[in-house]
Amino acid sequence: MAVTGDATDEESATTTASVVGASGFAGGELLRLLAGHPEFAVAQATSREYANKTVGSVHPNLRGLDLRFSEPSDLDSVDVLFAAAPHGVAMEHVDAWRDAAGTVVDLSADFRLETEAQYDDWYDGHSAPEHLEDAVYALPEISRDDLPGADLIAGGGCNATATILGLLPLAEAGLLEGAHVVVDVKVGSSEGGAGGGAASSHAERSGVVRPYAPTGHRHEAEIEQELGLSVSFTAHAVDMVRGASATCHVFPDGPVSKTDLWGTYRETYGDEPFVETVAGGSGVYRYPEPKAVAGTNKAEVGFEVDPENGRVVTFSAIDNVVKGSAGQAVHAANVALGFAETAGLEQYGMHPVGSP
Amino acid sequence: MAVTGDATDEESATTTASVVGASGFAGGELLRLLAGHPEFAVAQATSREYANKTVGSVHPNLRGLDLRFSEPSDLDSVDVLFAAAPHGVAMEHVDAWRDAAGTVVDLSADFRLETEAQYDDWYDGHSAPEHLEDAVYALPEISRDDLPGADLIAGGGCNATATILGLLPLAEAGLLEGAHVVVDVKVGSSEGGAGGGAASSHAERSGVVRPYAPTGHRHEAEIEQELGLSVSFTAHAVDMVRGASATCHVFPDGPVSKTDLWGTYRETYGDEPFVETVAGGSGVYRYPEPKAVAGTNKAEVGFEVDPENGRVVTFSAIDNVVKGSAGQAVHAANVALGFAETAGLEQYGMHPVGSP
Amino acid sequence: MAVTGDATDEESATTTASVVGASGFAGGELLRLLAGHPEFAVAQATSREYANKTVGSVHPNLRGLDLRFSEPSDLDSVDVLFAAAPHGVAMEHVDAWRDAAGTVVDLSADFRLETEAQYDDWYDGHSAPEHLEDAVYALPEISRDDLPGADLIAGGGCNATATILGLLPLAEAGLLEGAHVVVDVKVGSSEGGAGGGAASSHAERSGVVRPYAPTGHRHEAEIEQELGLSVSFTAHAVDMVRGASATCHVFPDGPVSKTDLWGTYRETYGDEPFVETVAGGSGVYRYPEPKAVAGTNKAEVGFEVDPENGRVVTFSAIDNVVKGSAGQAVHAANVALGFAETAGLEQYGMHPVGSP
Amino acid sequence: MAVTGDATDEESATTTASVVGASGFAGGELLRLLAGHPEFAVAQATSREYANKTVGSVHPNLRGLDLRFSEPSDLDSVDVLFAAAPHGVAMEHVDAWRDAAGTVVDLSADFRLETEAQYDDWYDGHSAPEHLEDAVYALPEISRDDLPGADLIAGGGCNATATILGLLPLAEAGLLEGAHVVVDVKVGSSEGGAGGGAASSHAERSGVVRPYAPTGHRHEAEIEQELGLSVSFTAHAVDMVRGASATCHVFPDGPVSKTDLWGTYRETYGDEPFVETVAGGSGVYRYPEPKAVAGTNKAEVGFEVDPENGRVVTFSAIDNVVKGSAGQAVHAANVALGFAETAGLEQYGMHPVGSP
Repeated sequence: MAVTGDATDEESATTTASVVGASGFAGGELLRLLAGHPEFAVAQATSREYANKTVGSVHPNLRGLDLRFSEPSDLDSVDVLFAAAPHGVAMEHVDAWRDAAGTVVDLSADFRLETEAQYDDWYDGHSAPEHLEDAVYALPEISRDDLPGADLIAGGGCNATATILGLLPLAEAGLLEGAHVVVDVKVGSSEGGAGGGAASSHAERSGVVRPYAPTGHRHEAEIEQELGLSVSFTAHAVDMVRGASATCHVFPDGPVSKTDLWGTYRETYGDEPFVETVAGGSGVYRYPEPKAVAGTNKAEVGFEVDPENGRVVTFSAIDNVVKGSAGQAVHAANVALGFAETAGLEQYGMHPVGSP
Repeated sequence: MAVTGDATDEESATTTASVVGASGFAGGELLRLLAGHPEFAVAQATSREYANKTVGSVHPNLRGLDLRFSEPSDLDSVDVLFAAAPHGVAMEHVDAWRDAAGTVVDLSADFRLETEAQYDDWYDGHSAPEHLEDAVYALPEISRDDLPGADLIAGGGCNATATILGLLPLAEAGLLEGAHVVVDVKVGSSEGGAGGGAASSHAERSGVVRPYAPTGHRHEAEIEQELGLSVSFTAHAVDMVRGASATCHVFPDGPVSKTDLWGTYRETYGDEPFVETVAGGSGVYRYPEPKAVAGTNKAEVGFEVDPENGRVVTFSAIDNVVKGSAGQAVHAANVALGFAETAGLEQYGMHPVGSP
Repeated sequence: MAVTGDATDEESATTTASVVGASGFAGGELLRLLAGHPEFAVAQATSREYANKTVGSVHPNLRGLDLRFSEPSDLDSVDVLFAAAPHGVAMEHVDAWRDAAGTVVDLSADFRLETEAQYDDWYDGHSAPEHLEDAVYALPEISRDDLPGADLIAGGGCNATATILGLLPLAEAGLLEGAHVVVDVKVGSSEGGAGGGAASSHAERSGVVRPYAPTGHRHEAEIEQELGLSVSFTAHAVDMVRGASATCHVFPDGPVSKTDLWGTYRETYGDEPFVETVAGGSGVYRYPEPKAVAGTNKAEVGFEVDPENGRVVTFSAIDNVVKGSAGQAVHAANVALGFAETAGLEQYGMHPVGSP
Repeated sequence: MAVTGDATDEESATTTASVVGASGFAGGELLRLLAGHPEFAVAQATSREYANKTVGSVHPNLRGLDLRFSEPSDLDSVDVLFAAAPHGVAMEHVDAWRDAAGTVVDLSADFRLETEAQYDDWYDGHSAPEHLEDAVYALPEISRDDLPGADLIAGGGCNATATILGLLPLAEAGLLEGAHVVVDVKVGSSEGGAGGGAASSHAERSGVVRPYAPTGHRHEAEIEQELGLSVSFTAHAVDMVRGASATCHVFPDGPVSKTDLWGTYRETYGDEPFVETVAGGSGVYRYPEPKAVAGTNKAEVGFEVDPENGRVVTFSAIDNVVKGSAGQAVHAANVALGFAETAGLEQYGMHPVGSP
């Protein structure tokens, strides 16, 4: 008998939540975070494939939870519905979801972009564009003021989240105007989701430094929308399961000092509960490192200056499944519903840790 | 600014604790667990090498903590002193530590064995044998009744903990009497501690299946002491950082069925908050798996029967840094001081997770 | 343009070979070894799925080879046909294969066991039992005398190969008579083949110590057949792609010294070109280690004695795709056809190497 | 007894070679390559630390070699001396080495740059600048015409080699003139050499995406020298042992098509024995991948165009210990001495392979 099922004090948690698409990686992470959240009680976890099985049979870390998957077609009314379905599913079901819940937090790409035209350009169009104007981008570091009371919240993409957090201080300081920006991202295998295939098998995927979608990545649209600038984006798969690390090479108009940057980052993130600036210093961990934040909702951001080349390099690291997905969603819901921002998200990372 | 420093509600935590040897892996893990513990307030974290540096400069997961290392020679009086120093240090300082704290919990091997003779046989003797009779073995699954009020608690070895937890139900059911037992353990690199050397460098240590101390491992003494039987023990280093997995091949006198074993394990662990029995079933995770419990104080145990060979095979998996060290210590302190057993130890593991 | 296509001097190579099932891991490895073999010229590489594609499109290490997959139904006449198809396929096609080639070397389990009764016990029977008596077990260390002129050769299983090579000296010295033997094997993900599935995805398979087929593994049949004793066998998946490591815990009737064992192993393997005894000594690599032999046809074997428990522990390590499959097949073919034993198999391993 | 010691036919190999600094990773790799080289016979392998020990005691892949380390102070006269000592050692000993050997191939940075001024700018000056004008850069893809007869050859840096090979076709086509170039490199732990330290321990180094020397990397000097342009360079440590992967983001003056690039790369590399262009196509491996070339002297190069951003992205992948060090040295020596270019360098890589 595991203790962990008791982590949420069911007596005091009065806000009900459903997780749709709960057998995937992001869905399982939502269950983990909500199970330890003081305000939420999980009412349903849906999975067509695993309906009636225990959530622990799919997510071994949740064996202590007394909860079974239910059919996605049979939704209870809840306060908040978190959706972690593949892209395209939310468009199709958003009406039903909004009927079932006062607040819908969707982790897919379906409501991230603001206009139908963007979906025409970057995706295969949109089948429920009338909801787009209601959607608020989930990342509280840029949308905190719009979240309270929002009833449709759209989680940011993991690569976009890492990139945006690294560049946001520069954008706010006006250092990106007219700047040339190259974004080189390294990501873990959990980004590919719980499905499989030859390319993601252990034998083929281990030890890679593999360019994927080397140009034209859809997250460019999101970065451009949120930061107001176009970036040259390339992502690489590397040997980790969780984690996204973005290195941004920025060429501002004029010279920038490291002291300036410390001020800039402090200005943007000084009061942020989930962003830590790491830029040099001593020891083994001198720059942002995904494994240091694995399992947590924290982002590490940092920078270095290259006066020879007129360059600023920024580094940012997140756990793509937490800060880049489920944790960001819970954080946004906390803000939307007026809970403490850090409720349910106070986990520390681990040290040492291998390749989480 | 990180939220995580607020995880412990300093207002309500009234029991003071020190961590001696806090820059090592087990010491850092004690800090992580105590920072999130509702009853403990950390008064000191000592490190000779890093005195005056922030704990976050060594343990990047703890950057949010507002705490600096202090000199180990300058100990405050506290309620509980947790010691995570290399073997031999505790013998030397135990008098001072017991003067400074009402309860000392030592994670080293220095007080695990009951008699001076065992230290003569398995180690290089003992310099403070007068304390041995006071020491209580930390693992609550076998020493719960002796822990309340204990003032010297000796943490079990990680490999011994994994082995003991796998075999304990068989021992309690009398199935190990006269049985031949082979224990084959696989462990991660964190067992070697925070120091380095050629053998533990990434280039040499990656991807290994490396026998070490293939015979005569000191944990045999501890297993024999706690279970009352001699085992044939061999450990292998494998490519993970955290984790210890013990496979025990047992040849009992008579036939045993899987149903019998389910009953036996339920009898021993049915009420244990930190032990989960996993033995077959469906899905990817059918037997104990160290990565499923990484970062947690949970142990997974399981078994299979091999009627052709008259064999029972048991499997057990722990995070060596938590259940095999710092978590076991906190669990024991919870029992010793009368706190809720699971206080500060309610973390869930992660899924997916790579090689934590 | 790559040089490697010229490694085989096509002028001088006069023995023709086909590889059936060439898109799998073992099939690709056969192509690699045959491409560098001085005696063989590859005539065909079949793959139903990838017919007409270049072998380099599946096996990126072979991009330099000017060779395309052909349909398996359209076989040329060759001197030697190597088959690397899934279990069951060889039974079905063995007549056609033997018509097409003077010598058939099958890497599957279909002809490893000697009698139809064994296939009834361990597999789902056998559909071409009339060929069983013709088959010679491929491993030259035990079948060298039977291989010359053999026209049906059955490759050993990778786990069985590792186990047999570790125990063979003890068997030949009579030390296994009546002995109790526990075999604990650790294997890489390439054993699962080129297919995929949730359990073998990178996210789920990374960092595991996962018992699979914990009892009743089919390789027990093969070990028993070749060594004449029953063993208690358990295999674990660990985080590597290539490699199989067998630790055998043996309890002989009387005492055995390490000096005795050195003599025993030298007696068995002193003249073997592909077996190296590694048992103690200095440095980082003191016992057999799969990564030290990755990519090669070498086996490392070693041992240690445990007088306290009356135990001998043997260690053996191979690359499962080479010595445990394709390399063993080429080695056997070399002996069968009277070539130099080491022809085409002289590769060195790498140092350092991570997790090959 | 291992076969591999016979790989070099000592009868026919008439060119003698020494390896200075043979216990390090690059030194061991030189021994591996020379042992299989048809023209070279290894006369000496020096190591101060391991003098009189077998090379197999340090390099487990070379256990089959009958060779012991000798003192570096006691050099025989040989035809070619390969030096794999830490930076700074070659400057000090170059006179003695050139006395002992007709051709010196130095793998360190000591003779890579052409002028003393560059060493003043990027290193701590140079103590033997009179040799600089004799040195020929080892990489045959750019210095083939200068190598024949060279008596001092300077191996390129591994990161520089990967970068130069990716950009060379663009440079030759005039596409880099005035172009802005960002180079983002990912490297394995073998780059750090055989020494250790906390940062390179398995527990700390596993699973990282760690920026190191994020700006001002010394290889910038070498890239600028060889390609005639300044680049913005950042390197990241990732979880592999062998391998260097360079992604270059290039912004040429005008539009470039993928067809143009195929022509450009074919023009530069069509006849190169060790460079393979991989740029799209089907299957799992569509772009250069370090693990596909592990253990070999091959480089994979590739590219993609990003018309939206006016960008060309190039990818290049090598094994840093072979093409980026020991293999490049042997290749250069082959050209310098008039041997077949590919002599001793015809190894295929492996598939599958994990994280070599």
